[in-house]
Amino acid sequence: MLKVGILGGGQLGRMLLQAAANYPVETHILENDETAPAAHLCHHFTKGDIRDFDTVYHFAKDLDAITIEIENVNVEALEKLESEGKKIYPKPAVLRIIKNKILQKQFYQQNEIPTAAFKVINSLTELKQEQAFLPAVQKLAEGGYDGRGIQLINEFSDLDNGFDSPGVLEKKIKLKKEIAQIVAVDQQGKMVLYPPVEMVFNNNLNMLDFQLSPAEISQKVLWKVEAIALSLVRHFNSPGIFAVELFVDAEDNVFVNETAPRVHNSGHHTIEAHYCSQFDMLWRIILCYPLGNTKAILPSIMVNVVGANGHSGKAQYPGLEEVLQIDNAFLHLYGKKETRPGRKMGHITIMSAEKLDLIHKANKIKQSLTVVSPAPISEGELKPIRGIGENIC
Amino acid sequence: MLKVGILGGGQLGRMLLQAAANYPVETHILENDETAPAAHLCHHFTKGDIRDFDTVYHFAKDLDAITIEIENVNVEALEKLESEGKKIYPKPAVLRIIKNKILQKQFYQQNEIPTAAFKVINSLTELKQEQAFLPAVQKLAEGGYDGRGIQLINEFSDLDNGFDSPGVLEKKIKLKKEIAQIVAVDQQGKMVLYPPVEMVFNNNLNMLDFQLSPAEISQKVLWKVEAIALSLVRHFNSPGIFAVELFVDAEDNVFVNETAPRVHNSGHHTIEAHYCSQFDMLWRIILCYPLGNTKAILPSIMVNVVGANGHSGKAQYPGLEEVLQIDNAFLHLYGKKETRPGRKMGHITIMSAEKLDLIHKANKIKQSLTVVSPAPISEGELKPIRGIGENIC
Repeated sequence: MLKVGILGGGQLGRMLLQAAANYPVETHILENDETAPAAHLCHHFTKGDIRDFDTVYHFAKDLDAITIEIENVNVEALEKLESEGKKIYPKPAVLRIIKNKILQKQFYQQNEIPTAAFKVINSLTELKQEQAFLPAVQKLAEGGYDGRGIQLINEFSDLDNGFDSPGVLEKKIKLKKEIAQIVAVDQQGKMVLYPPVEMVFNNNLNMLDFQLSPAEISQKVLWKVEAIALSLVRHFNSPGIFAVELFVDAEDNVFVNETAPRVHNSGHHTIEAHYCSQFDMLWRIILCYPLGNTKAILPSIMVNVVGANGHSGKAQYPGLEEVLQIDNAFLHLYGKKETRPGRKMGHITIMSAEKLDLIHKANKIKQSLTVVSPAPISEGELKPIRGIGENIC
Repeated sequence: MLKVGILGGGQLGRMLLQAAANYPVETHILENDETAPAAHLCHHFTKGDIRDFDTVYHFAKDLDAITIEIENVNVEALEKLESEGKKIYPKPAVLRIIKNKILQKQFYQQNEIPTAAFKVINSLTELKQEQAFLPAVQKLAEGGYDGRGIQLINEFSDLDNGFDSPGVLEKKIKLKKEIAQIVAVDQQGKMVLYPPVEMVFNNNLNMLDFQLSPAEISQKVLWKVEAIALSLVRHFNSPGIFAVELFVDAEDNVFVNETAPRVHNSGHHTIEAHYCSQFDMLWRIILCYPLGNTKAILPSIMVNVVGANGHSGKAQYPGLEEVLQIDNAFLHLYGKKETRPGRKMGHITIMSAEKLDLIHKANKIKQSLTVVSPAPISEGELKPIRGIGENIC
């Protein structure tokens, strides 16, 4: 059996391992947290820091192939492993570009991939020169994730609140829609595309509110999205799964926002709503099997289950029963013991032929289900909440 | 989180654990083989004999609930645990009846569940008195599984080859179809039925050849199947999943063959082809969540992947690539390192709206895929076979 290592043990690793159990593959996880979502579902767990050269190198040196579930890994170790003949998904060169938002934007520019106009900004002093470029979005070069490291700079007075670190300042686009396009690339370079999804954000947290599949876009916009994503992924020149996030503006221009060179939140719905899920697809790529069918079985909506504001500590899920009453709502809890405001604790995919039915059910889920802790930090009082593992029926 | 123990670590346990990762549940496996299909997918693995009283009792005494993936477990330990307040799925009283084919047949008789006429036979001497009852099927009271412990006694000369152990002799039914009906029962006794499936057997191995969902039966037969299965499962008076195997004869009479009080081979297709799989459903039952939707997304065929005759040893799967070329064919390999003739090594589910398409694809899979070992026992020679983990692409 092929021995495959995954750097990172979060929910994406967990879902990769659920899919791995259908294939002839021996799974290894490298992760610092022994209670992480993926820790108990692999053949071999190694506790260690995915950002440390020696740890990654020693973890991987006896394995056949390596993949990631987060970009924040030691790329130098992967480069050394690649030079020694290991297969890495995606190639370390891609990770090096994508991990740094300056390099990522320059890569789009060099390869004529449409993306919002930007300037490289190294400090707050430099940022303050850019009044004429506003409104804009400042993004830190490294370390941003799930809305962290990103700041809106709408007007002059916002400049003082900018980051004093290297990054990019992107011209704000008059956003009509935000789209994600997942592309799968096999080891011969053959590519298949999933139907693009439409992402609806919660502006408070800069977190996904829900995600509709397929995206409601005209055929002309669809063709642009597909052409841009294919062209971009060809330039990466690497097998793997790529989630390309794109903006559509009021004039139906399409711009690449950013790319994740791995399985991605925007593909969660493919587990139930598509014939071949993104997780299944990555195993097919790594194991040299034919690419799977990306078609949708039915339209779907994916809702992230996130920690409620004001709650940190042991997670409980009041409202879960109401959610599980809904026909064709598929629950995925990630097994994280502790909730925090905005933390991704799970997701729910709903399948239905009718868009209105999907939206109705997604709203019902968002109204029913919360992730709380019995000792909320903001109030400091204990509330008895009927939570997980406490059902008496 | 509820702590749930599973007795047995085979493929049914494996698929239960793949589904468990979506729910808030801590999983424990008791199994003698540390390399068994389910061993690496649980939170806590305990090596031990599921047939031993002390082992089962000590494994389970600190858990909240216990379920099984095979009937051959220590029922006395489960009875003691139940008397101490543990929840057991199914109830030990059901297991006691089902584990013994004499008690199982008598239970059907006592509860007016239609079943083939039978006689209790304790020895070969008793068997030889039953010429007038032929053609018949002799079944050992205990220990039969996947075609073992079952013998056709068609005529007088076959009597000499009968078992010399307690069991039943069942009158042979003029079989038109063999059906399996899965029933899910929650903790309040609420029941839901999956559409029945039709099982087509390979007479050489007495193993399933393929299984078509839904079964092609008239509405009248469907109603009989459902009514009989519901009535039977009500008499068991236990929450859990029940797979009722039934015969339909030439006159459309319906008889119960046997029952498995657990997730079952006849429900494998529900993973992809139904909204709520049998594995998902069992977690809903154990965790006191609402029962899921048993409807089919699309018709399906399930093909077991079994070890080829003449091959014992390290398993290889030539033909796997051709199978994975087929659209909407879902592979499940169970991770068993060694193949043996007739051993269940995996299964493949195919989804399609067209029955002919399903049968065509199932036949293609049966022609393409074999499970072999590089050192076949019958020939004793080494054949280089392109197997798993050896793809170079």
